[in-house]
Amino acid sequence: GFAKVDHHRKKRQGFPEVIFGEGKSASQIIDISRAMMNKQENILITRVSEEKATAICEEIPSFEYDQISRTLVRRYQEKLEYQLDGYIAIVCAGTSDLSVAEEAAKTAEAFGVEVRRFYDVGVAGIHRLFAHIDEIRDATVSVVIAGMEGALPSVVGGLVSHPIIAVPTSIGYGANFQGLSALLTMLNSCASGISVVNIDNGFGGAYNAILIHRLANKRT
Amino acid sequence: GFAKVDHHRKKRQGFPEVIFGEGKSASQIIDISRAMMNKQENILITRVSEEKATAICEEIPSFEYDQISRTLVRRYQEKLEYQLDGYIAIVCAGTSDLSVAEEAAKTAEAFGVEVRRFYDVGVAGIHRLFAHIDEIRDATVSVVIAGMEGALPSVVGGLVSHPIIAVPTSIGYGANFQGLSALLTMLNSCASGISVVNIDNGFGGAYNAILIHRLANKRT
Amino acid sequence: GFAKVDHHRKKRQGFPEVIFGEGKSASQIIDISRAMMNKQENILITRVSEEKATAICEEIPSFEYDQISRTLVRRYQEKLEYQLDGYIAIVCAGTSDLSVAEEAAKTAEAFGVEVRRFYDVGVAGIHRLFAHIDEIRDATVSVVIAGMEGALPSVVGGLVSHPIIAVPTSIGYGANFQGLSALLTMLNSCASGISVVNIDNGFGGAYNAILIHRLANKRT
Amino acid sequence: GFAKVDHHRKKRQGFPEVIFGEGKSASQIIDISRAMMNKQENILITRVSEEKATAICEEIPSFEYDQISRTLVRRYQEKLEYQLDGYIAIVCAGTSDLSVAEEAAKTAEAFGVEVRRFYDVGVAGIHRLFAHIDEIRDATVSVVIAGMEGALPSVVGGLVSHPIIAVPTSIGYGANFQGLSALLTMLNSCASGISVVNIDNGFGGAYNAILIHRLANKRT
Amino acid sequence: GFAKVDHHRKKRQGFPEVIFGEGKSASQIIDISRAMMNKQENILITRVSEEKATAICEEIPSFEYDQISRTLVRRYQEKLEYQLDGYIAIVCAGTSDLSVAEEAAKTAEAFGVEVRRFYDVGVAGIHRLFAHIDEIRDATVSVVIAGMEGALPSVVGGLVSHPIIAVPTSIGYGANFQGLSALLTMLNSCASGISVVNIDNGFGGAYNAILIHRLANKRT
Amino acid sequence: GFAKVDHHRKKRQGFPEVIFGEGKSASQIIDISRAMMNKQENILITRVSEEKATAICEEIPSFEYDQISRTLVRRYQEKLEYQLDGYIAIVCAGTSDLSVAEEAAKTAEAFGVEVRRFYDVGVAGIHRLFAHIDEIRDATVSVVIAGMEGALPSVVGGLVSHPIIAVPTSIGYGANFQGLSALLTMLNSCASGISVVNIDNGFGGAYNAILIHRLANKRT
Amino acid sequence: GFAKVDHHRKKRQGFPEVIFGEGKSASQIIDISRAMMNKQENILITRVSEEKATAICEEIPSFEYDQISRTLVRRYQEKLEYQLDGYIAIVCAGTSDLSVAEEAAKTAEAFGVEVRRFYDVGVAGIHRLFAHIDEIRDATVSVVIAGMEGALPSVVGGLVSHPIIAVPTSIGYGANFQGLSALLTMLNSCASGISVVNIDNGFGGAYNAILIHRLANKRT
Amino acid sequence: GFAKVDHHRKKRQGFPEVIFGEGKSASQIIDISRAMMNKQENILITRVSEEKATAICEEIPSFEYDQISRTLVRRYQEKLEYQLDGYIAIVCAGTSDLSVAEEAAKTAEAFGVEVRRFYDVGVAGIHRLFAHIDEIRDATVSVVIAGMEGALPSVVGGLVSHPIIAVPTSIGYGANFQGLSALLTMLNSCASGISVVNIDNGFGGAYNAILIHRLANKRT
Ligand SMILES: Nc1ncnc2c1ncn2[C@@H]1O[C@H](COP(=O)(O)O)[C@@H](O)[C@H]1O
Ligand SMILES: Nc1ncnc2c1ncn2[C@@H]1O[C@H](COP(=O)(O)O)[C@@H](O)[C@H]1O
Ligand SMILES: Nc1ncnc2c1ncn2[C@@H]1O[C@H](COP(=O)(O)O)[C@@H](O)[C@H]1O
Ligand SMILES: Nc1ncnc2c1ncn2[C@@H]1O[C@H](COP(=O)(O)O)[C@@H](O)[C@H]1O
Ligand SMILES: [Mg+2]
Ligand SMILES: [Mg+2]
Ligand SMILES: [Mg+2]
Ligand SMILES: [Mg+2]
Ligand SMILES: [Mg+2]
Ligand SMILES: [Mg+2]
Ligand SMILES: [Mg+2]
Ligand SMILES: [Mg+2]
Repeated sequence: GFAKVDHHRKKRQGFPEVIFGEGKSASQIIDISRAMMNKQENILITRVSEEKATAICEEIPSFEYDQISRTLVRRYQEKLEYQLDGYIAIVCAGTSDLSVAEEAAKTAEAFGVEVRRFYDVGVAGIHRLFAHIDEIRDATVSVVIAGMEGALPSVVGGLVSHPIIAVPTSIGYGANFQGLSALLTMLNSCASGISVVNIDNGFGGAYNAILIHRLANKRT
Repeated sequence: GFAKVDHHRKKRQGFPEVIFGEGKSASQIIDISRAMMNKQENILITRVSEEKATAICEEIPSFEYDQISRTLVRRYQEKLEYQLDGYIAIVCAGTSDLSVAEEAAKTAEAFGVEVRRFYDVGVAGIHRLFAHIDEIRDATVSVVIAGMEGALPSVVGGLVSHPIIAVPTSIGYGANFQGLSALLTMLNSCASGISVVNIDNGFGGAYNAILIHRLANKRT
Repeated sequence: GFAKVDHHRKKRQGFPEVIFGEGKSASQIIDISRAMMNKQENILITRVSEEKATAICEEIPSFEYDQISRTLVRRYQEKLEYQLDGYIAIVCAGTSDLSVAEEAAKTAEAFGVEVRRFYDVGVAGIHRLFAHIDEIRDATVSVVIAGMEGALPSVVGGLVSHPIIAVPTSIGYGANFQGLSALLTMLNSCASGISVVNIDNGFGGAYNAILIHRLANKRT
Repeated sequence: GFAKVDHHRKKRQGFPEVIFGEGKSASQIIDISRAMMNKQENILITRVSEEKATAICEEIPSFEYDQISRTLVRRYQEKLEYQLDGYIAIVCAGTSDLSVAEEAAKTAEAFGVEVRRFYDVGVAGIHRLFAHIDEIRDATVSVVIAGMEGALPSVVGGLVSHPIIAVPTSIGYGANFQGLSALLTMLNSCASGISVVNIDNGFGGAYNAILIHRLANKRT
Repeated sequence: GFAKVDHHRKKRQGFPEVIFGEGKSASQIIDISRAMMNKQENILITRVSEEKATAICEEIPSFEYDQISRTLVRRYQEKLEYQLDGYIAIVCAGTSDLSVAEEAAKTAEAFGVEVRRFYDVGVAGIHRLFAHIDEIRDATVSVVIAGMEGALPSVVGGLVSHPIIAVPTSIGYGANFQGLSALLTMLNSCASGISVVNIDNGFGGAYNAILIHRLANKRT
Repeated sequence: GFAKVDHHRKKRQGFPEVIFGEGKSASQIIDISRAMMNKQENILITRVSEEKATAICEEIPSFEYDQISRTLVRRYQEKLEYQLDGYIAIVCAGTSDLSVAEEAAKTAEAFGVEVRRFYDVGVAGIHRLFAHIDEIRDATVSVVIAGMEGALPSVVGGLVSHPIIAVPTSIGYGANFQGLSALLTMLNSCASGISVVNIDNGFGGAYNAILIHRLANKRT
Repeated sequence: GFAKVDHHRKKRQGFPEVIFGEGKSASQIIDISRAMMNKQENILITRVSEEKATAICEEIPSFEYDQISRTLVRRYQEKLEYQLDGYIAIVCAGTSDLSVAEEAAKTAEAFGVEVRRFYDVGVAGIHRLFAHIDEIRDATVSVVIAGMEGALPSVVGGLVSHPIIAVPTSIGYGANFQGLSALLTMLNSCASGISVVNIDNGFGGAYNAILIHRLANKRT
Repeated sequence: GFAKVDHHRKKRQGFPEVIFGEGKSASQIIDISRAMMNKQENILITRVSEEKATAICEEIPSFEYDQISRTLVRRYQEKLEYQLDGYIAIVCAGTSDLSVAEEAAKTAEAFGVEVRRFYDVGVAGIHRLFAHIDEIRDATVSVVIAGMEGALPSVVGGLVSHPIIAVPTSIGYGANFQGLSALLTMLNSCASGISVVNIDNGFGGAYNAILIHRLANKRT
């Protein structure tokens, strides 16, 4: 029967509760959060505007808001210790993709996974990427985020051997078509070992990376 | 300097050589294959029509052609032994997606990774999926292939905890737009832990899964 | 001649008057409503913003506004009794599609048809759907509403034998393209017995279901 | 448990077995058909080319092929008697949509449902539609098929009170974009009571109509 | 040389000056208008918001603003007399397309051409069109305006023998894609004698009709 | 009643019968033609392949086939005399659009209207257009045909005062998208007095021009 | 090693520093600008709203803001002298494309290159272009900017022999699709010697022209 | 007057005659070529299939056919000497883009311009590009050709200072959409100094480069 589903749940034990904040009112989020707080788990809420965050934090002061990633995090354990070996590399070109990159980074950290940030390594100045390539290579998995033409995952993919989760962003204008350009670039990448999530889905990029990172640790 | 690149290559030692057969003539493929045969590695050639395969096998009889997946494989070691624990699940709905599913399966096998096939589990008859769900759950990673509306990865994603590589296929007609429908479905999946490769890219789906599978084994 | 048209009208006797509120000013809606009130029928107005609703209700206090569905309803008969056997199932994944689902539900109720709501049954957690499947199956017809990847009608369609009216919503982001993703998914469904209406057209979904529900009752 | 699924199956008792012929070889179809013939049910195979049909009929002479609809039907009962009251109207503009219209008609007939054909009633000469409108109105449900601009369902929808299943076809050229034009027209119809299936999906249009037609008869 | 161009200008003598107001500031429009006022011709300005219109009329009180069509007109001759025989029919479905229809009507009137308005004749209630068909037929040319599915020109085109200029509007939602649906419908019309202008281009629809209407009068 | 429709027909007296040949078999065309031949009118058949034409002409030798325009014409009156003053200008850039331009020209001639051809006047060498501009200006109406970027109607529209029917063609490659590029160019033209028909619709372009040309003559 | 990259930098000596202002806050721009001011080079910031510009100029008064082009420029040398022979032609149709044209012009000037502006030469009134064609021809390279149908580069391209950088703008409505129409027109141009940059990318258009202009001067 | 046009022609003296072979029959090409041969200039014909080439060469044996680029060239001067300093770099990823790259190369050579080919430098193995970067940098201008994700021009653009003409190719499958993916990538490039021509337009890429190359030589 459907006890199978519970089995699935159990496998993810230790994962924080996640709420997708977009399209939910502050009071809806407060209600859901309160229900979750009984479970004594970390809570991560994504896509929360500053205005909503203020309203929520007034009610539940244990939430910490981060403006750039637009995430709210509540840590059940005061100081979170990393339980896993290694780290996830979060790679992007620069300031414009920062918001998506930080959604990914904060997500991974809320799941107790170490991340290293490589945030100024766009393909138009490829020497910046090379300056960090060894540290990127030593990650378990990379989340590579790019807007405009979205070429970064192809270049990184040609230089590292681990799996890459590519996240297109909606940064750009004109023939960018709100991220379609970067999305198509990533889906058509010549480099192997790249898979793609939805435009601006920093959370999703990190979530896939976390699953892989856990697998790499599981059997030790 | 660029010795870094060699380092990258080394990490992938033991991987077979892969040739993308589409758009290459039989004689071009023969030339490339001959050059590779010196390296004493397995060789995998994808997207080879029957006609081309015949011409190639006449010249290089050590190639084995598989009609459904349209792959040519040459095994350097007579009998390939699986070096890794566990298996990759290849999941699809039925006969129409078979060709892409088998491209994925043959790819994994050419890389020395065990696969298990779950080929009759489309969402329109979901009980068939449930009959196999425990065996799918026990895989390291799943490659989930679907054409038409492409809903299968979402459903599987809700039932398993490991990463899913979703492969849309171009199977369908009308508003399917050669696989665009399934591609969008997968990119927009409500289920977490799903990343996507290009339409009909069975090879790419498997390649990502193999990288993950290796990671899961590496630290043992 | 065109008396035929009257014949058509007559067949729909007992149906409420419906006004599509979008793009009409409050005063335009008031004028149209007043003209209709002579007919002593129920009146349903869809797509009314809260601001407009306030202005209208001040003038015509017999209207009841519902914030979630954004509908205004005026009941000519104080307490509406259901004249038909059976019910329509309104099925959706959760909070984000609520507005469209409730537009459908309020429409059916304004037409005197019983609805049952199944509002937390998204495909990413399919056990929730199974918990209610028998009650959904016993409906005459289902209106199945889904945003993001829009896979829910396919799954429901595989589990019930009655007709399904699928309503894609514009909920999502990135490669969702304002509901295009869900729309294509539904048009390409592998499951038989599914037909589709326009994105966010909760009214249209319900209207088709009502016509079918009436047919199922007509010959008794 | 999943015995529920059987329950679903049972509700459709008396339905013929259906095979989607596209993308299946003649020998695959023969194998599937033979397996089904044990069940002593009618068999309907859609999307069968003339060439494949010849090969299949040689092996299984009890199949009857229809060139226009490209369907193969095997009737288990020598002479099929209509068990249901009323009929389904199949409405289209003319010769170019004939193939899709006949796929719908043959489907309904294979399910034992009476159809009436209205095949020369395009909107550019609307008097032809009016000549038949009373007979169309008396149907339980209409399947309205149109290519090019796809306006026919809107016009019919304004004249009849029963549900309409609209089927866009890929007939046209230039800005028709293989049926996209007609599909969008139908999804955006001003007339209520119209739902839509995939481009060229005559089978699907009929299947939905059949489910509705059965409902209209069920409670008698 | 280019005196040819003057020749072209001359042929259009008696035409008012036209300004496309969108994207121009009130003060830019005032400057252009003042320069034109020396020419002692009628002036037509399209796409003027209410706010801009107020600013302009304060400076140039001889302008008359029309809210629905968003046009400003300045008549050099106090009372305009129609110099041409016959009239142009402006045909549309109802309130939602009114703004575009009136842009067309006001344009024709500014050019001294009589128009007759047929504004409640949508295809979903085709008897309304028939009530006026004789008067529409007697026009020299029709401008037929439609949003949503845009089927009206096809139906009118089948009933009249004069040329039809079809104007798609952006009215609709979801799969309407801002008027794309209606545009494609019109381009794919089965009826002959229909040509199409840009979405929401009421001015362009009228301008084409005016040129035709003048031709029909020229040779008298 | 619908006698109105006959009235419409009558107004078009003297028009030839037209058959759209695409998607009709040779024998279907022969049957339709024979039925029409009783009416003692000219017959025009468009979109007829050479192969079909040969089969048809064998049966009905009075048909004349034109390879470039792919039209079949049967003239009831041995030698057709032009009954109307003036001519239609058919304007295009060169050899690649010839087929569409000739479909337009042959259509006009089959309707007894004089055409003048201006076939080497593309915008990339604009002096060629200027060499003929006076003769183009003296036409009643122009049909302007263009593939690739489709800029020709804009340029002609700026130089002539009569109405222009623009016909985009599917000539081009890459980002041409089978004529979409030219279609959009024409719909967005800055020049007034341009309306557009479907891609490659030479017949439709001519038909609109003929209606206008007749109007210009009617009142003499 | 990567000293190569420095070599690349050196070749562009004398170029101003450029900041893409869109998506950066005033304070981010101030920080970046201050860091650059040490380099004693001209600074160009594009896509700066009036509001941001005010905030920036308050902090760094040496910046000059231009409303139309939305650029901020800081000149290190009080009076900039042109170091290169010849000029770049900036060609566009009129007021609506002014903002993009001026972004191009200001860019070139910030790089010390002379520009000549030809701003009222749209294809719908082609005599205006001819009045200036000799001066355009004498430029080293032209930046041709056009919205709506985007035909101007094709016409200019047929009249001049130097390279043309075409810049589509998002000016237009309806089937313009935010500049897609003009973009496709330019990519499909029949005229040779035209290459294209992104929609509204006045900066990019100028930058390419500057590189070409420098080449034309380099070898003197 | 239009003597201006001749002036334009003169400036291009020394350029070969070019014929676009696509859509022209062998005999049409022969006729055009013969007319041109009087002019004693080199002749270049692009997009000629092998079959057509054979027919043409039989008639005009002085033509040389190149299978890969599908070009025919006739050299008026037996041995062509390069008259210009420097060279154009033709850069692409490998075998799949060869046909387009060679169309560019043969075009440049037919115009008497030296080219250097860099044909194995795709971004997925970026060390190959670095091995040649100095020689690419020393070119006057680069034509960078790429299919699939089209990232190569962005990377090259970040490493060289001269202008880059980017040519997207239609190589790829699935979400490549016949080159749309590469086209969008190039239009959205983060690197400055890149302009784009139509998909597969090797000729156009070279033509733009030739114009720039001539400019760089002109003033010496
Ligand atoms: N930024 C995000 N983008 C996409 N999915 C998200 C995001 N944040 C959270 N989610 C997913 O949304 C789920 C919660 O959705 P909900 O139940 O609507 O709060 C989580 O389990 C995640 O899988
Ligand atoms: N939310 C809705 N979406 C689409 N159609 C609607 C909706 N609400 C009402 N309608 C239709 O709009 C018609 C009324 O349109 P109107 O005459 O503009 O008020 C009704 O008869 C319904 O068929
Ligand atoms: N023409 C058709 N278009 C779409 N679906 C069809 C068609 N004909 C049959 N089907 C569906 O395809 C199913 C059989 O698919 P298969 O298992 O591939 O034979 C049937 O149960 C029908 O639901
Ligand atoms: N090339 C064409 N493109 C579009 N419509 C055409 C064409 N040729 C003929 N037609 C139209 O098709 C109608 C005949 O269609 P049919 O009844 O299918 O032969 C004619 O009355 C014309 O209006
Ligand atoms: Mg890699
Ligand atoms: Mg999962
Ligand atoms: Mg079902
Ligand atoms: Mg109806
Ligand atoms: Mg007509
Ligand atoms: Mg004009
Ligand atoms: Mg030129
Ligand atoms: Mg550069």
